[in-house]
Amino acid sequence: MPKIDLDAVPEVSRTGYPKPYAAAVAGRHYRRLGAAAGLGDFGVNLCRLEPGAWSSQRHWHSSEDEFVWMVAGEAVLVTDAGETLLRAGDCAAFPAGDPDAHHLINRSAGEALFLVVGSDKPADTCHYPDVDLHLPRNDGGFTRKDGTPY
Amino acid sequence: MPKIDLDAVPEVSRTGYPKPYAAAVAGRHYRRLGAAAGLGDFGVNLCRLEPGAWSSQRHWHSSEDEFVWMVAGEAVLVTDAGETLLRAGDCAAFPAGDPDAHHLINRSAGEALFLVVGSDKPADTCHYPDVDLHLPRNDGGFTRKDGTPY
Repeated sequence: MPKIDLDAVPEVSRTGYPKPYAAAVAGRHYRRLGAAAGLGDFGVNLCRLEPGAWSSQRHWHSSEDEFVWMVAGEAVLVTDAGETLLRAGDCAAFPAGDPDAHHLINRSAGEALFLVVGSDKPADTCHYPDVDLHLPRNDGGFTRKDGTPY
Repeated sequence: MPKIDLDAVPEVSRTGYPKPYAAAVAGRHYRRLGAAAGLGDFGVNLCRLEPGAWSSQRHWHSSEDEFVWMVAGEAVLVTDAGETLLRAGDCAAFPAGDPDAHHLINRSAGEALFLVVGSDKPADTCHYPDVDLHLPRNDGGFTRKDGTPY
């Protein structure tokens, strides 16, 4: 059936970030809804942030669009311009190639639940302005800013 | 700012359907959030259905993935297998090429609000099994099933 049984989609908590950058996303959990349903053109993840958790290190993509819809709770969107609160029913978009790095932080006392939609391009480069982290290709591994692998 | 001001995105109600197929979607209104934010890899529409309105004629895409997230209210998802109620927090996915035609009907007394994410491929063909309607290419016009244009 096209309706997705959310409870049947396993919630995962893994990250490819090396230490010490993985700690910030330890309280981030997500269900890969699009992949579970057989979608290939874009990814759809339902992401749950425990209090204090980050959605990711602050980043921007060379070639992948991203869209976020806040479902429940609230989280702070951090960009170059500062901070903006996203509450349930709020949304934000991050066009490919826009170098305004972004992430969400749950500074509330409750859980935050949001949808993330993103394109998936093997040659995408992900930039992390705040930390010594770089992802030259989506289908490769993380490096330091000087290009040495972790 | 990456946060989208929903009130600043115009709500449109237009359809390319010819008569008599346009009437079913007269109570369908949507905000093109992805386009407003400069996204190009996929579309994101926030769709509002008045009581009685349909999201579309029942259809399936040859080459475009679709994903729906119910935000508020409820609507009936109709597929070849029958009917399923989608309430706020429910979602459904329609992989490209799966010939299980689908649409949403708002049979409730209140409005239904949902997100639709879809890829956008000029060569997509859209099939409408219930009516004398065909869309050979996404970037072209509607025809009858025998290929004659409307």
